[in-house]
Amino acid sequence: MSIDELAPKCGEWLKGSGPESDIVISSRIRLARNLADFPFIRKCSDTDRIEIENTLHKAVAKIDSWQERVEYVDVSDLSELDRQFLMERQLISREHSEGSGARSVAIDSSEQFSLMINEEDHLRIQVMQSGFDLHTSYDFIDQIDNLIEQNVNFAFHARLGYLTACPTNVGTGMRVSVMLHLPALVMTREIDRVLRSMTKINLAVRGLYGEGSQAMGDFYQISNQVTLGRSERDLIDQISEVVPVIIEYERNARAFLKQESRNELNDKVKRALGILNSAESISSEETMHLLSSVRMGVNLGILDNVQIPTINKLFIHTQPAHLQKLHGMELSSADRNAARAQHLRRSLQN
Amino acid sequence: MSIDELAPKCGEWLKGSGPESDIVISSRIRLARNLADFPFIRKCSDTDRIEIENTLHKAVAKIDSWQERVEYVDVSDLSELDRQFLMERQLISREHSEGSGARSVAIDSSEQFSLMINEEDHLRIQVMQSGFDLHTSYDFIDQIDNLIEQNVNFAFHARLGYLTACPTNVGTGMRVSVMLHLPALVMTREIDRVLRSMTKINLAVRGLYGEGSQAMGDFYQISNQVTLGRSERDLIDQISEVVPVIIEYERNARAFLKQESRNELNDKVKRALGILNSAESISSEETMHLLSSVRMGVNLGILDNVQIPTINKLFIHTQPAHLQKLHGMELSSADRNAARAQHLRRSLQN
Repeated sequence: MSIDELAPKCGEWLKGSGPESDIVISSRIRLARNLADFPFIRKCSDTDRIEIENTLHKAVAKIDSWQERVEYVDVSDLSELDRQFLMERQLISREHSEGSGARSVAIDSSEQFSLMINEEDHLRIQVMQSGFDLHTSYDFIDQIDNLIEQNVNFAFHARLGYLTACPTNVGTGMRVSVMLHLPALVMTREIDRVLRSMTKINLAVRGLYGEGSQAMGDFYQISNQVTLGRSERDLIDQISEVVPVIIEYERNARAFLKQESRNELNDKVKRALGILNSAESISSEETMHLLSSVRMGVNLGILDNVQIPTINKLFIHTQPAHLQKLHGMELSSADRNAARAQHLRRSLQN
Repeated sequence: MSIDELAPKCGEWLKGSGPESDIVISSRIRLARNLADFPFIRKCSDTDRIEIENTLHKAVAKIDSWQERVEYVDVSDLSELDRQFLMERQLISREHSEGSGARSVAIDSSEQFSLMINEEDHLRIQVMQSGFDLHTSYDFIDQIDNLIEQNVNFAFHARLGYLTACPTNVGTGMRVSVMLHLPALVMTREIDRVLRSMTKINLAVRGLYGEGSQAMGDFYQISNQVTLGRSERDLIDQISEVVPVIIEYERNARAFLKQESRNELNDKVKRALGILNSAESISSEETMHLLSSVRMGVNLGILDNVQIPTINKLFIHTQPAHLQKLHGMELSSADRNAARAQHLRRSLQN
């Protein structure tokens, strides 16, 4: 499996299956881990970073069941385009992409998990799953964590828990995040109130591409901020209790729109598909905005000739680096807009 | 022929044929005439107005060749909807529609001419023709004028010419106007400069629906302002010389866009058709704006599955009163927007 082979496919987490998948795109968990025998990344020499990579590569290579399943990618050796591609794919973080020095990522062939080596911490394990199922995700990441820990010595403090480069991750080192599609709350202008209530209970809200990214396409990523002094199960339980409340708000807003603004809703959805099917040039931002309306339209039964997995895939495949990989060459911004429009027309008319 | 029978049809002047019809929608001429034996409308008693109507009706009825061709409509007796319908159809003026007292219109069945009785003047004769052919239009209106003048005595002053209610019409009583479709000059932002040069040579510029109406759908109506001291042929000649210059500007702007902004142009045109084909609710203003792009797209060979007469007809048939006549009932603004979208989808998909 090479990066080029990844491009036309799509990860398991975009399959549009799993509980509540009309609203919850994906559930993700990541664990931050550090090797006890090395300083934190910030204090690492170049040699340290290389040794950390070697140590972790060997630890992973010892796991028999992953032999066929996991591929290493040397991130420091990648072109900017390939790094952006992996980031759009959610397989590496922006920090990992834009960092410097020896760093790599081990990618599961079905993209259910990835292991970032030498990101902010020595190791970041992440699992991604379609729909809303944090307990399954947690069982899965816990198993991965144990498999790796059999072969390495993680920095762990009896009272504090796992030690991490940034104090906000100390303890469990865990971040739980759920990607929600909330177009009706945006349309009814209730979204701000809902998001404010999230931050009041110490949950962070971000867009599709993590910290600092705007909430394009009506996607909101809800995640925990605090990791210290709480068990993994506690954190999972908190998010597992809050997310159904947001889902309920979104469902109510959709029902309200269907009841009270049926014509405007139909118009918005049909126009969105009409534009995606006819544009000759389209930006990434407009694409996400329109795909969001189409996705809601399918989920509300307004459109029946488009499939959710197709739309989920388009959200990722119309991102700049994906477009260029699919096109087999680097493209200017104007050419990307044309290629994006063509890709959308072909995908939606199939 | 009743008003209801007119609704689904379209006048000869919208057929999209005739010289330069990619840019010139229609050529129109009107003559203002008053009966010598009655005061101007402003000074008329109710009885005067009725007598003027009778006199002119009788004069028209004597014209043998019009027996089957001309239909009288009592404008004072019409509902607001029907008056608006005739106005959208360009068969009566806004002033005639919104006036009061005895007034009527004689309509040619192919809508090549209409005779407004008791508008600002006792009689306004107008002829309308598709494309750019003012000399044919003038020959036609001159013939109509002569036919009527055989049977009535028009107010005429040996030195001033025809006398009219408003001094700006004295002399020939003639207004020559040409409806131009100038989307490329609008896109290249050259339109203001072109229009300013028109007003400098004493030509008036208006939108589709005459004085005070905004230039929606990139339609501009160029007409003479001065009627006194110039012969009919002079006025025709002036407009006949100026319009080809504007046509040339528009053609150059289209060629420029095709050359320099091919992608943006294609995108604009294809999106316009995409939205018209998919909207579930659409305003009259947005409709005209989008139809304008589609019309240009067809004329530039970007679209080949739409016919110009279909588009010309849609400009008129999607106006509020037409929509309601075609729908067979009065509709609220929201219902009109839905009916308009449906009408557009059906017409464009045929």
